[in-house]
Amino acid sequence: MTAIKIDGRATAKKINAQSAEQTRKLTQKGVIPGLAVIMVGDDPASAIYVRNKERKAAKLQFNSVVKHLPADASQAEVIALVQRYNEDPQIHAILVQSPLPSHLDEEAVVMAIDPRKDVDGLHPENLGQLFAQVGEDFPVACTPKGIMTLLSQYQISLPGKRVVMVGRSRLVGKPLLALLNNANATVTLAHRHTTDLAELTRSADIVIVAVGQADLITREMIKPGAVVIDVGMNRDASGQLTGDVAKDVEDVAGYLTPVPGGVGPMTIATLMQQTIQLAAWQTGQVVD
Amino acid sequence: MTAIKIDGRATAKKINAQSAEQTRKLTQKGVIPGLAVIMVGDDPASAIYVRNKERKAAKLQFNSVVKHLPADASQAEVIALVQRYNEDPQIHAILVQSPLPSHLDEEAVVMAIDPRKDVDGLHPENLGQLFAQVGEDFPVACTPKGIMTLLSQYQISLPGKRVVMVGRSRLVGKPLLALLNNANATVTLAHRHTTDLAELTRSADIVIVAVGQADLITREMIKPGAVVIDVGMNRDASGQLTGDVAKDVEDVAGYLTPVPGGVGPMTIATLMQQTIQLAAWQTGQVVD
Repeated sequence: MTAIKIDGRATAKKINAQSAEQTRKLTQKGVIPGLAVIMVGDDPASAIYVRNKERKAAKLQFNSVVKHLPADASQAEVIALVQRYNEDPQIHAILVQSPLPSHLDEEAVVMAIDPRKDVDGLHPENLGQLFAQVGEDFPVACTPKGIMTLLSQYQISLPGKRVVMVGRSRLVGKPLLALLNNANATVTLAHRHTTDLAELTRSADIVIVAVGQADLITREMIKPGAVVIDVGMNRDASGQLTGDVAKDVEDVAGYLTPVPGGVGPMTIATLMQQTIQLAAWQTGQVVD
Repeated sequence: MTAIKIDGRATAKKINAQSAEQTRKLTQKGVIPGLAVIMVGDDPASAIYVRNKERKAAKLQFNSVVKHLPADASQAEVIALVQRYNEDPQIHAILVQSPLPSHLDEEAVVMAIDPRKDVDGLHPENLGQLFAQVGEDFPVACTPKGIMTLLSQYQISLPGKRVVMVGRSRLVGKPLLALLNNANATVTLAHRHTTDLAELTRSADIVIVAVGQADLITREMIKPGAVVIDVGMNRDASGQLTGDVAKDVEDVAGYLTPVPGGVGPMTIATLMQQTIQLAAWQTGQVVD
C-alpha cells in the first residue's frame, strides 16, 4: 500500500485563484487588501519567507508593505511601527516575522498588534476566542487553518476521530488542537514530556507532527491507513528539505502530506486568504 | 484495594485559613477584597450556590455584594450592572451566576465583564492567556484551579502523565486541559463524540470527568491505581448528591475525589482565593 499524497500545491492553487477573484471584487468596491510584514534583522530563512509572502501579495495585487528594520532596532521602534500599522486604515493585516533578534521581547510585540489585524492569530484574545468557540470574525493561525482546508479538501471526516497532535506551539499545535476539537475530533496534545509516543500515535486515526525533528515519526508508529500530516521543515545534510516524518511512513499511512509540497504551500495561501477576510471584516464587506 | 480519598473539605479549609490571613493583611493596607455576584431570576440551585458564596465571603470579611435581578431583567439592565461593577474600585471580582434566563445573551454578558475582574476566568482573553501561557496575572476558572491545588496537595506528579479529560466546557474541561498541558501532562480532551471512551480512559494515569451524568465512569474503565477526579454534581432518585463516577470505582482507583466533599468545596475556596488575588493585582499589593 502506498499513501495517497495530499497535494498542498494543487489545493493552494485553488485557494489562490479564489483569493484573486475575491481581491478583484473587493478592489471594485474600493477596498484593497493591505498586508504589512515587519522583519527585523537578517535571518536568511526569514528573508526567504518574507520575500515569498511579498511576491504572492504583489501577484494578488494587494497593498503589500514590507518593512525591514536593522538587527539592532529597539523594542520601542518595533512597537511604534506596529502601532503605525494598527492605525493605518489601508493595512488590514500585520505580520511580524519570527524569530526576532534576541534583545527584543517578541511577546510584547505580539501583544501590541491590534487583535483584529493579527493575521497570524497569535494574540491571546484570538487564541482564546478560538478555544472558547466565541464569535466568528477573528483571525486564526494560518498553518492550522490551512491544514483544516486540506483535511476538508480530501474529505477526511473528523467527528469522533482520534487525533494525536505532536508539538504544542502557539503557531501550530495549540490552535490546531482547538480547531480539531471544535470539529468534534478527540484530540491528544503530545510534546517533549510525553512518554511512549509510539504507542500513542499508533492508536490515532490522524497524526499531525510539528516539532522540527527529521524522522521523528517512523513507520511502526503509524496505524495502517492513518492520515499523517507533516508540518516539519528541516534541512538534511545535503541541504534537501525534509519533514518530521520518515520516508517509509508512506508504505503504511492512508494519506500523507509530502514535504515539500504539502502543508507549506497552504500556509502562505491561507495567509493571503485571511488578509482578504480581515480586510472585508474591517470594512463591512462580505467575501464569498 | 481501596482508593485514597482526596479530601476536598480538608484542603479547602487550609485554603480558607490562608485566605483569612491574606484578607487581614490586605485590609490593614486599606484593601478589602470586593466580590460582586449577579444573579438573575430564581433558579433554586443557583440560589443555593449564591448563598454559599455570600456566606463564605462574609465570613472572610470581604466587601461582598449580591445583586439579585428579577427573572425578566433586560439584557441592557444586566450589562449596565456589570459595567457599574467594572468601574467600581471597591469591587475586584465579578461573577455572573449561570445559567441566565433564556432571553438573555450570556455570551454578551461575559464579554462585558472587565477581564481583570472576571473571577470565573470565562473571558476569551483570560482563557487565551492561559492556553498560550502568556503573562501570569490573569484569573483562571475556579474549579480547574481548585483541582490543580488538590493534585498538588496530594503530590500527584503531572509531567509525562496521561490524562483523559472527559467534558470540554469553558468552565471546566477547556481551562483544565490548558492547566494540565502547561504542567507537562499529555492530555486528551474527550466529549460526546468520542468513540470507545472506556478504552481511552483505561490508558490514562489520571481521569477527570465533568459531564453531569451519574455512573458515566465505571470500574472497568479505570486502570488499577489511576487517579480519578469527579467534577459531576447529580441528584439521584432519592435526592442524594452523586458525581459522574460509579461507586465501585473506589475498588480499583489509586486516588478518588468523593462527591460530596471532593472538588465541590475547592471551587468556592478557590473563588475566594482568587478574589483576594485580583484585589491585590488591581491595587499593586502582593499576597503570599
